[in-house]
Amino acid sequence: MPILILTDFGTRDPYVASMKGVIASRTEIAIHDLTHEIAPFDVFEAAWFLRTVWMWWPKGSIFVAVVDPGVGTSRRILVGRRDDRLFIAPDNGVLTFVEAGEVVAVEREDLYLPDGSDTFHGRDRFAPIAAALANGFAYGNIGPTAGEISRLPYRPPSYASDSAEGSVVAIDRFGNCVTDLARNEIAFETFRLYAGKHSIGRTERTYASSPDPGPFLLIGSSGLVEISVANGSAAEALGVRRGDAVRIVKT
Amino acid sequence: MPILILTDFGTRDPYVASMKGVIASRTEIAIHDLTHEIAPFDVFEAAWFLRTVWMWWPKGSIFVAVVDPGVGTSRRILVGRRDDRLFIAPDNGVLTFVEAGEVVAVEREDLYLPDGSDTFHGRDRFAPIAAALANGFAYGNIGPTAGEISRLPYRPPSYASDSAEGSVVAIDRFGNCVTDLARNEIAFETFRLYAGKHSIGRTERTYASSPDPGPFLLIGSSGLVEISVANGSAAEALGVRRGDAVRIVKT
Amino acid sequence: MPILILTDFGTRDPYVASMKGVIASRTEIAIHDLTHEIAPFDVFEAAWFLRTVWMWWPKGSIFVAVVDPGVGTSRRILVGRRDDRLFIAPDNGVLTFVEAGEVVAVEREDLYLPDGSDTFHGRDRFAPIAAALANGFAYGNIGPTAGEISRLPYRPPSYASDSAEGSVVAIDRFGNCVTDLARNEIAFETFRLYAGKHSIGRTERTYASSPDPGPFLLIGSSGLVEISVANGSAAEALGVRRGDAVRIVKT
Repeated sequence: MPILILTDFGTRDPYVASMKGVIASRTEIAIHDLTHEIAPFDVFEAAWFLRTVWMWWPKGSIFVAVVDPGVGTSRRILVGRRDDRLFIAPDNGVLTFVEAGEVVAVEREDLYLPDGSDTFHGRDRFAPIAAALANGFAYGNIGPTAGEISRLPYRPPSYASDSAEGSVVAIDRFGNCVTDLARNEIAFETFRLYAGKHSIGRTERTYASSPDPGPFLLIGSSGLVEISVANGSAAEALGVRRGDAVRIVKT
Repeated sequence: MPILILTDFGTRDPYVASMKGVIASRTEIAIHDLTHEIAPFDVFEAAWFLRTVWMWWPKGSIFVAVVDPGVGTSRRILVGRRDDRLFIAPDNGVLTFVEAGEVVAVEREDLYLPDGSDTFHGRDRFAPIAAALANGFAYGNIGPTAGEISRLPYRPPSYASDSAEGSVVAIDRFGNCVTDLARNEIAFETFRLYAGKHSIGRTERTYASSPDPGPFLLIGSSGLVEISVANGSAAEALGVRRGDAVRIVKT
Repeated sequence: MPILILTDFGTRDPYVASMKGVIASRTEIAIHDLTHEIAPFDVFEAAWFLRTVWMWWPKGSIFVAVVDPGVGTSRRILVGRRDDRLFIAPDNGVLTFVEAGEVVAVEREDLYLPDGSDTFHGRDRFAPIAAALANGFAYGNIGPTAGEISRLPYRPPSYASDSAEGSVVAIDRFGNCVTDLARNEIAFETFRLYAGKHSIGRTERTYASSPDPGPFLLIGSSGLVEISVANGSAAEALGVRRGDAVRIVKT
């Protein structure tokens, strides 16, 4: 089962290639990129990305998430487990939305690269741990239960009988504004969304349903309410940014 | 034989990683990226990219092209076949330049992900179709012959005994302007090219043949006439854009 | 053992996908991207990247480095060998920092694609050579010893008992300025670094060691002295650029 890598390293610098080399030196398992374009140090973006993609990968997959501004400090390295996938990440909130049922803190320095650096644990610690796990090293031998782990400050959406409150959690390449309001948690069929000074009542089933240039709502591919604009960026058109509060009201 | 993915998704958003997860959950076949940097919704760019690369991949390769502004509408999903490669794409012109001899329209909802979205057929439909085909699902069972398919508005180049007319079909990272005029269709040896207000008579064999800073012509790696500038961008220097008409005249 | 590809092609154009297709048509060996984001024609950036990553990949790895502004001219194609890895590159300085003990010049036109272009040797020559070597073609049969090869103009760092002089060799995505001063070559424990008008005396063990916003020094993941700024770009803050001279003095 594959090893999946997510970082904020970009691909122009030699960091990702070094990590992959360490993995490929230790295991024949397939390696895939999830992304390396997380904004530098943006733990939230990484955490939400992981939440969106992990369930599409097969059982046995090993995720390695290295958005790690605290590398080399006393922050722990965690390995979470959920639905037969493993998630290796610093204890800085990257695992907030994976909601792993089990999490251990790595305490096996023998797995690390010898003479590793204080500044690149992705290569020196995360990569060899991932390879060891891929090669059959037992999850239970990685370290003790982590107990309390770091979580990002985040207010989950709240759902009432005729309204719901949430926030914008991602803005994609096309300018779609993804909220954390899940269609299947909303108790009513039709609604109007309020975001800053804007209010949007039109709902469409697809991005191309209507030639009307104005903004509209739809249910995106993760089952979440999105704000969109035909052939344009809703984020730009409306001035919406990640983290902005949104509210929907039954109509 | 590998599965090759082309999208306009970029790699920062979780879309490509989700598609690959669906494929990797269904087949052990190798997955390679062609590109995810097609400009958003730019079907022409995707179509020309496909035309340029497909023949370099081995027989049996399965191409998945997801530049799909009409996702979720009634546009069909096609599977073309040419020279033992398969091409999965929306019926919006992406297959214009592949010139597949056979094309079928997918009519096997049982292959799709259950409860798939209306907004992300790349993950919910294209990916499982690709995996099924990679695992041996018969091409003939995908659906009926597609009949007329969507084609991009495009005037093919025309060749006369002492001139030829074409257009700029791509501008690459280096600023080279690639035309659709094929060297082996041109009936004469030497020529001058006219593009907008510019006229270029110098021809070189390689990008570095001459230190002269002015623009020159050469035959690029697909056998097509290109406009280039040593150590610079011909597109910027000349103000040439994709789609611009070009004309060559025998000299 | 894998084939690793480094280019300045970017991934938006069809060049990388064409190269990979040629390789995948000839061998089942795994292909990994090192990077395709080397700045166009920037041989130094490519050379330093290679120096940083090669040792992390397993013995038997085959590196293909195509930053090749002189493609099609009389510049040779080299295959270097070091520590059981092979390095295929144009003879333009890309191999400067690999310091291969053996280097041969390719003289096997029979390995090239038939009817190849003068403008894309990455696809037509480098890729089939890499595939042939991966499939067991003997290194000794590639061509004669290369003799003198092209080297980039570069002054290696000099180390004295109470000072050392070097230069900035890379600026990474985070704005860290990597110098070529190796910690284990420096004869003293503590030092001050001078770069342009700036002088930096503070040293930290990790990027996040201190909340102090000013610049500091640390030993990066390749054992080299770096200039960094907490949560910011040292390069921007200090106006440091690649190639700038730096000097450290014992304190």
